[in-house]
Amino acid sequence: MDWKVEIKILLKESILDPQGQAVEGGLEKLDYNNVSEVQVGKHIELELEDLPSKEEASKQVDEMCQRLLANPVIEDYTFEIEELEG
Amino acid sequence: MDWKVEIKILLKESILDPQGQAVEGGLEKLDYNNVSEVQVGKHIELELEDLPSKEEASKQVDEMCQRLLANPVIEDYTFEIEELEG
Repeated sequence: MDWKVEIKILLKESILDPQGQAVEGGLEKLDYNNVSEVQVGKHIELELEDLPSKEEASKQVDEMCQRLLANPVIEDYTFEIEELEG
Repeated sequence: MDWKVEIKILLKESILDPQGQAVEGGLEKLDYNNVSEVQVGKHIELELEDLPSKEEASKQVDEMCQRLLANPVIEDYTFEIEELEG
């Protein structure tokens, strides 16, 4: 079975997010003064082939996040997996 | 009312995604050979204050994406809006 994966990666809450602050500042300059708590992270989409179950797919995605896609020291990640129509 | 917004920004399909290709190459080097169609984009979260309806919130988010958060020439964006508990 093939799987469609969407991964969301954000800095942990305790880590300063300069990109988020920059975006918030930019929005303020455009007179959007009702915006707060801006966080900027990564969104990754990918397809996984030939895994027999959602559990196996989830296991591989978690491992890929730990090893390459995210930096687990400073980032949190979450992901969603859906079966791809054959 | 206050609103929690999640925005997903990805390159349009017709635009080359070198970051996605780099990630795919990195995964292959780690022996993940069943991964394809990798796309790397941005995930932005923020809070909006003092808007009377989801429609108003949606209008402002769309405008902010067009003006600052995304580059509509090369990027597509989608977003989800939920009311924040008071």
